[in-house]
Amino acid sequence: MSGPREECGIVGVMGPERAAEWAYLGLYALQHRGQESSGIVSADGARSYAHRGMGLVSDVFDEEILTGLPGAAAIGHNRYSTTGSPTLANAQPILVNYRDGFLAVAHNGNLVNARTLRRRLERKGSIFQSTMDTEVVVHLIAAERDPSRDRAVLETLDQLKGAYSLLILTPDGLYAARDAHGFRPLSLGRRGDAVVVASESCALDLLGAELERELGPGEVLKIQADGSSEVLRASPAEAECLCVFEQIYFARPDSTLFGMGVDVARRRLGRELAREHPADADCVFAVPDSSTSAALGSSEGSGIPFELGLIRNHYVGRTFIQPGQEVRDFRVKVKYNPVSSVIRGKRVVVVDDSIVRGTTSKALVGLVREAGAAEVHLRVASPPLRHPCYYGIDIPNRDELIAANMSVPEIARFVGADSLGYLSFEGLYRAVGSRDQHCDACMSGNYRVPLEPGIEEKTAFETLSLSSAP
Amino acid sequence: MSGPREECGIVGVMGPERAAEWAYLGLYALQHRGQESSGIVSADGARSYAHRGMGLVSDVFDEEILTGLPGAAAIGHNRYSTTGSPTLANAQPILVNYRDGFLAVAHNGNLVNARTLRRRLERKGSIFQSTMDTEVVVHLIAAERDPSRDRAVLETLDQLKGAYSLLILTPDGLYAARDAHGFRPLSLGRRGDAVVVASESCALDLLGAELERELGPGEVLKIQADGSSEVLRASPAEAECLCVFEQIYFARPDSTLFGMGVDVARRRLGRELAREHPADADCVFAVPDSSTSAALGSSEGSGIPFELGLIRNHYVGRTFIQPGQEVRDFRVKVKYNPVSSVIRGKRVVVVDDSIVRGTTSKALVGLVREAGAAEVHLRVASPPLRHPCYYGIDIPNRDELIAANMSVPEIARFVGADSLGYLSFEGLYRAVGSRDQHCDACMSGNYRVPLEPGIEEKTAFETLSLSSAP
Amino acid sequence: MSGPREECGIVGVMGPERAAEWAYLGLYALQHRGQESSGIVSADGARSYAHRGMGLVSDVFDEEILTGLPGAAAIGHNRYSTTGSPTLANAQPILVNYRDGFLAVAHNGNLVNARTLRRRLERKGSIFQSTMDTEVVVHLIAAERDPSRDRAVLETLDQLKGAYSLLILTPDGLYAARDAHGFRPLSLGRRGDAVVVASESCALDLLGAELERELGPGEVLKIQADGSSEVLRASPAEAECLCVFEQIYFARPDSTLFGMGVDVARRRLGRELAREHPADADCVFAVPDSSTSAALGSSEGSGIPFELGLIRNHYVGRTFIQPGQEVRDFRVKVKYNPVSSVIRGKRVVVVDDSIVRGTTSKALVGLVREAGAAEVHLRVASPPLRHPCYYGIDIPNRDELIAANMSVPEIARFVGADSLGYLSFEGLYRAVGSRDQHCDACMSGNYRVPLEPGIEEKTAFETLSLSSAP
Amino acid sequence: MSGPREECGIVGVMGPERAAEWAYLGLYALQHRGQESSGIVSADGARSYAHRGMGLVSDVFDEEILTGLPGAAAIGHNRYSTTGSPTLANAQPILVNYRDGFLAVAHNGNLVNARTLRRRLERKGSIFQSTMDTEVVVHLIAAERDPSRDRAVLETLDQLKGAYSLLILTPDGLYAARDAHGFRPLSLGRRGDAVVVASESCALDLLGAELERELGPGEVLKIQADGSSEVLRASPAEAECLCVFEQIYFARPDSTLFGMGVDVARRRLGRELAREHPADADCVFAVPDSSTSAALGSSEGSGIPFELGLIRNHYVGRTFIQPGQEVRDFRVKVKYNPVSSVIRGKRVVVVDDSIVRGTTSKALVGLVREAGAAEVHLRVASPPLRHPCYYGIDIPNRDELIAANMSVPEIARFVGADSLGYLSFEGLYRAVGSRDQHCDACMSGNYRVPLEPGIEEKTAFETLSLSSAP
Repeated sequence: MSGPREECGIVGVMGPERAAEWAYLGLYALQHRGQESSGIVSADGARSYAHRGMGLVSDVFDEEILTGLPGAAAIGHNRYSTTGSPTLANAQPILVNYRDGFLAVAHNGNLVNARTLRRRLERKGSIFQSTMDTEVVVHLIAAERDPSRDRAVLETLDQLKGAYSLLILTPDGLYAARDAHGFRPLSLGRRGDAVVVASESCALDLLGAELERELGPGEVLKIQADGSSEVLRASPAEAECLCVFEQIYFARPDSTLFGMGVDVARRRLGRELAREHPADADCVFAVPDSSTSAALGSSEGSGIPFELGLIRNHYVGRTFIQPGQEVRDFRVKVKYNPVSSVIRGKRVVVVDDSIVRGTTSKALVGLVREAGAAEVHLRVASPPLRHPCYYGIDIPNRDELIAANMSVPEIARFVGADSLGYLSFEGLYRAVGSRDQHCDACMSGNYRVPLEPGIEEKTAFETLSLSSAP
Repeated sequence: MSGPREECGIVGVMGPERAAEWAYLGLYALQHRGQESSGIVSADGARSYAHRGMGLVSDVFDEEILTGLPGAAAIGHNRYSTTGSPTLANAQPILVNYRDGFLAVAHNGNLVNARTLRRRLERKGSIFQSTMDTEVVVHLIAAERDPSRDRAVLETLDQLKGAYSLLILTPDGLYAARDAHGFRPLSLGRRGDAVVVASESCALDLLGAELERELGPGEVLKIQADGSSEVLRASPAEAECLCVFEQIYFARPDSTLFGMGVDVARRRLGRELAREHPADADCVFAVPDSSTSAALGSSEGSGIPFELGLIRNHYVGRTFIQPGQEVRDFRVKVKYNPVSSVIRGKRVVVVDDSIVRGTTSKALVGLVREAGAAEVHLRVASPPLRHPCYYGIDIPNRDELIAANMSVPEIARFVGADSLGYLSFEGLYRAVGSRDQHCDACMSGNYRVPLEPGIEEKTAFETLSLSSAP
Repeated sequence: MSGPREECGIVGVMGPERAAEWAYLGLYALQHRGQESSGIVSADGARSYAHRGMGLVSDVFDEEILTGLPGAAAIGHNRYSTTGSPTLANAQPILVNYRDGFLAVAHNGNLVNARTLRRRLERKGSIFQSTMDTEVVVHLIAAERDPSRDRAVLETLDQLKGAYSLLILTPDGLYAARDAHGFRPLSLGRRGDAVVVASESCALDLLGAELERELGPGEVLKIQADGSSEVLRASPAEAECLCVFEQIYFARPDSTLFGMGVDVARRRLGRELAREHPADADCVFAVPDSSTSAALGSSEGSGIPFELGLIRNHYVGRTFIQPGQEVRDFRVKVKYNPVSSVIRGKRVVVVDDSIVRGTTSKALVGLVREAGAAEVHLRVASPPLRHPCYYGIDIPNRDELIAANMSVPEIARFVGADSLGYLSFEGLYRAVGSRDQHCDACMSGNYRVPLEPGIEEKTAFETLSLSSAP
Repeated sequence: MSGPREECGIVGVMGPERAAEWAYLGLYALQHRGQESSGIVSADGARSYAHRGMGLVSDVFDEEILTGLPGAAAIGHNRYSTTGSPTLANAQPILVNYRDGFLAVAHNGNLVNARTLRRRLERKGSIFQSTMDTEVVVHLIAAERDPSRDRAVLETLDQLKGAYSLLILTPDGLYAARDAHGFRPLSLGRRGDAVVVASESCALDLLGAELERELGPGEVLKIQADGSSEVLRASPAEAECLCVFEQIYFARPDSTLFGMGVDVARRRLGRELAREHPADADCVFAVPDSSTSAALGSSEGSGIPFELGLIRNHYVGRTFIQPGQEVRDFRVKVKYNPVSSVIRGKRVVVVDDSIVRGTTSKALVGLVREAGAAEVHLRVASPPLRHPCYYGIDIPNRDELIAANMSVPEIARFVGADSLGYLSFEGLYRAVGSRDQHCDACMSGNYRVPLEPGIEEKTAFETLSLSSAP
């Protein structure tokens, strides 16, 4: 997938002297999961502190700001909006005060019954200051009558439907939870007495924490200030719905996710792809960086040499000039540089992890041809994307998804490839494990957690427009 | 008063094509009432838009931002914190969504029962995202069961105790209200079909709107999209408590407030002061800019010529270097430049509007002496400040107020003046009207609206620390 | 004069441990002389350090930057461009390296033979990196063959024609010089062993330095590291050409300039004005802030009471919205607020220091009328401006100067005043001293230092366009 | 080489309507050659325009700035300082005015006789405003007496010794030149009538221009406004000294340089390396990104599978927190993420292009071991770096270069590798062509262009410290 569509990254830290610094570094390692805004809430006993801002982790925080976030407990959040507008008002973690002190929440995922819950809360007089479904979670906890915070948290979680990994920081400790189906990942690690919970294990690695295990689907864990943890609710036997797109595209290749190294999984995808769609070609290369593992696997599987046919320009800034109509597909050209000395006169296999709208693929195939390729064979390391995701991943609606509107040969013609092959579902699950355990609704349309009526209107929550100074 | 202690400015606009631009200009005219943060909420039918930022109005807004705030209705707010920390999370107007659509509130004043109301709301499950008492108002309106928004607003206002001028923007129209005692000002004006409500008439002047009248204490007005307005509740006969400090110091001299031109009122203060505390002197001058009217009045009253003895440097930026211990009272010296050619060898009367801690006065008297004054007679155009204000003005606690801890002769000695005279209450009210109609609690300790127990702890609302990127 | 047209401010410091901090504070006091850019060069023995930036002194410098400017010698410069484009490339002081080490120059004024000198230098192979005439000075010093730096400086100064006060910092010491006619001011002060030279005495005051004397016209002074100073060339007997506009408008009222306190001088201008142009009126007020002294003088002279009829808004930011055609003369209205309670029904005298294009005066008279004035009598505390200045002040060309194109009655009609009176030359010099000693070319057209042919084209130096990042 | 040491990138454009936009895009493609500052000078007939700033191309320029750089001719420069401090005063291109109009120069390289030339110029009275050797070039051209600009340029170039590719923009046209030995690259391309000259062919590719040829060593080309070009001096037969480090590390892999595709060259280096230093290992991976081509070549040469063992984090911002002494080698850890699933239990070959100080290599070997590698074999695709470069590449002095102070076995021990192999000179030149044609002074110490005495003191030009606002 050549587009920058990512979800959110979360990290929780309990124990070290300056937990906010740990959270900062964890967010840093999870930057690929959200570049729109970033935030940390820390706590020092009953006092809480927050800082949030628009932009990359390294832009939002500096030493002075981190010094203003004291305490041995912290949660952090990187955001790429899936619901809610891209404004500071929607940056997480949310921090509120209520009857029982402060409450901070960081959320990765998407609730499919957020609208229903919100309407119910509004009828009772609740007010909403953002367009995030996460705000519903905070209201529900505060509205629980049960004097035990543990029970209030559990009863709230029982009302949530859909995909979530949640971190909830309170004066008594840090709650970490995954939804009953385990759509979104969450890993638990330790370094000495300090506990770290993070979306991906790569955050633990950077902090020098050892990966203990992934939280199970439906598991709710409470971590205390002394590093002790208690399983408030164990993972049920219920069917898992691990998001297969995390393995295909989202996660960082050096993470371990759903029990498997991501690089290993993608290598396998590439090998299966080579087996299913052989090509008579001189070299194989990736659309960097996310497809590189799959392309290496494809090279291994096919015996066709792996090359660096496309170089990615990592200096691409926020704004740049489009030179009129002069240069076609310029945005793609600025980002990917074809290496003519590799490509000229060759029959090439280009491996991508997925195709969304098809426009980037079309531009890339054009670039590769202009660089002198004799033949261009496009291979995609996943089945066609045909349906939107309501569980937390920003995949557009059906009318924008090329595979929802064209057959594979039509797509091949549209992008200008000599041949096009998508991985089959069988190949996909030979590579990453049992289909029963995974969610592939974006490819199959099989939404295993029922949706609220009307959820298709993506803007449900967006009637409130909030913006804040940059 | 030589310190930058101000409260808030609010403006509401109904009718013009781009109401946010009008609100912007109104805030611009009210900049003296709050320089910490600024915000505007606009509405276009049922849709609402918000922008808030830290800093001056002209820094927070630009053309692009104003274009993003469409619609014929808008409210704006300039803030100087009286409760709540100086962070973006505390910038106003507050905008929320609730059962009946959006709700935006801009508030000038201070509620004396905010803590009680908040605790009650928290017990019912409400959550608070800021440390502002204004958030209580929003919760109360949303919690009202009455399906009529008019009644919900009126019932909410009935629960509020203390000082407030409020603007409440909803999909049905704009509510403008003053508390039952009328502590804070609020003026109503029109320009063609457009209606403007603002803290001071100077905002109407800049917009070319004609001052129709000031809202009465306790009055609640509802303004519709077509410019029609309805008095939901008329001003009661109850005793007024107009903040006398608005006349003495806060308001802009070109405003008309509580039925009197501010410059006129201050001239009279100066004349009374001259009468009560004559001095055998060669010239009289002001601590600019807020005391200039009073100094002119004093010159008139005494016949002593008015001079520019102190020049104010308006380029004072946010940060500057203090040259070690080398130069005494440097902050004051940077801001006020004594004019030696006026002062040298003269017996001078220096007129200030009030004295808070006394340190600035001490530094100023020192500067004037260094510039060659033969005698320095300090005259203050108000009675001594001896008590904190709980109705919306940031006057420090008793232990910081010099007049709460020293007698007038002691203060004279502390600041180094040859003589010191404060205006009496009699003189004050000869100048600005009946004492019955005014609040002078900060000088007399006569808190005419009872306080909640414990309100003295100024930090009551501040246990939640929120910060956001600049 | 109601427009922000200013020239430059310079300051030199020799002796204190951290001279750059002194220079910073001196520039701070001289901010009114130039707000476009600011710079400091410091020296620590043979090493030199520089920082320059666009904007106000307090924006350009912070503590870290000042720490990076070590040494006991420094010169600083505030700029408002009179020649040269408003870019960083034109910020001063200029710092270069040449045969004899470093050379830094800060310049206030304008050379009338810069173009001739530059052409001569270019013919010899010199290159120019800016459009400032100051760059010529640097080249001339470097081109001198004389091994004595003192003689190189003196010989260079001999070639310069026009108006200049110059500070030249070298490894041997600081040279301070005024042109032979003394157009621009320069004051010398001491605090302990430290020596300070500055455009106006208000900079000495802020630094706690005592004004020793003003440098004489044509004087060249060399100040050494130990605070000793040597007069390299004494002030000649030649005729002085002190810029009378410094007294009328430029200088800060608390400065002493050309031997007279500025506030005192402006009071006298006001008194003369009242005598020459009596008006049957109820009150007199100023166009603040620069005309306040003159208005006070006018009130004294006429016995008509002084009022605050116009309030200046000091929060005017860099950009703001113009509300279409809706509000006439909006720029002026935002800056000056008429006080209706003072003005309504009165016959008023408005005192300004000068009129340039007449558009601001027209808008002000309109504002005052709208505020209810019965009659508006405009009084100007200087003779009409009819000619451009080539000696360092940014007065526009004749076709833009209203008094070069209209008679006084025509101007009165244009601005809408009931009567208009300008001060006569006789009145001017009764107030500020002998006409022989002053330059009033902008009013009289009497250019006492001959101009280069072609100097009228103001853009002579501007063919090179340079810009730099903000 | 794992450090961010790069030189400069230059681009010249002649012909298109908005040449500055082309220059901008060319600089964008050359961003890897310098990230410290960026600048463009454009010309519209006899008028010139400049903008320079600190930071990346996309930060320095925006649409408004580019609109302010009109004309059909432009040169641009990306800078990483090799001489001169990192300040805006040292940003290029230099733009000056002199006798014959404007003169703009962009320079890639380093002159070995700059100090001699500068002293000679200073003796004649020249002044220097920066610490760049490029300023010398400008002075020399301006000092030439010959009325023909072509001859002035040629005579100036004759005086320069060392390494340079130069672009000189004048009112008559654009001069492009390479030094007699051709140390630094320069490519010529065309698109329609427009001519583009750039450090590397990747800039031509982005602009859609076809690579015509590389300029020869010693060649001087003059390009006119109409796109015609004239060879003022052909490339001499003299011995070439192409910088071999451009091929090994600097250039972008999709460029063609010195007649060979860079990716192809690095593949060959990898194959030679595998042949010279075989290892009994399970996988081979690169230190990304610059070593990836060499690692692929090594995998091909050895038959050992290529893996993604290290992932580079491209979100690394300018500042980040070091978590005390807690995490060793944190800077390296933040930038490179080892992929445990690839590494655990494996004997790995790590390919880097070069080793400078050895500290990064040591940290990387440590990371790879911590990730579970059984054995770590480090392979370097170039001979040991033992000498500084005086021809334009920022290689540190001998005392910092690990290979100048340790034997290969000592280095292996220092970095903790099980084995270490550097490519031999024979292997290097089997890969990239004849040794006679290349400069490898940084490895061999064979400085083929004689150095000025004293050049070892790298700070020769640095006695003038200049800084400017960010």
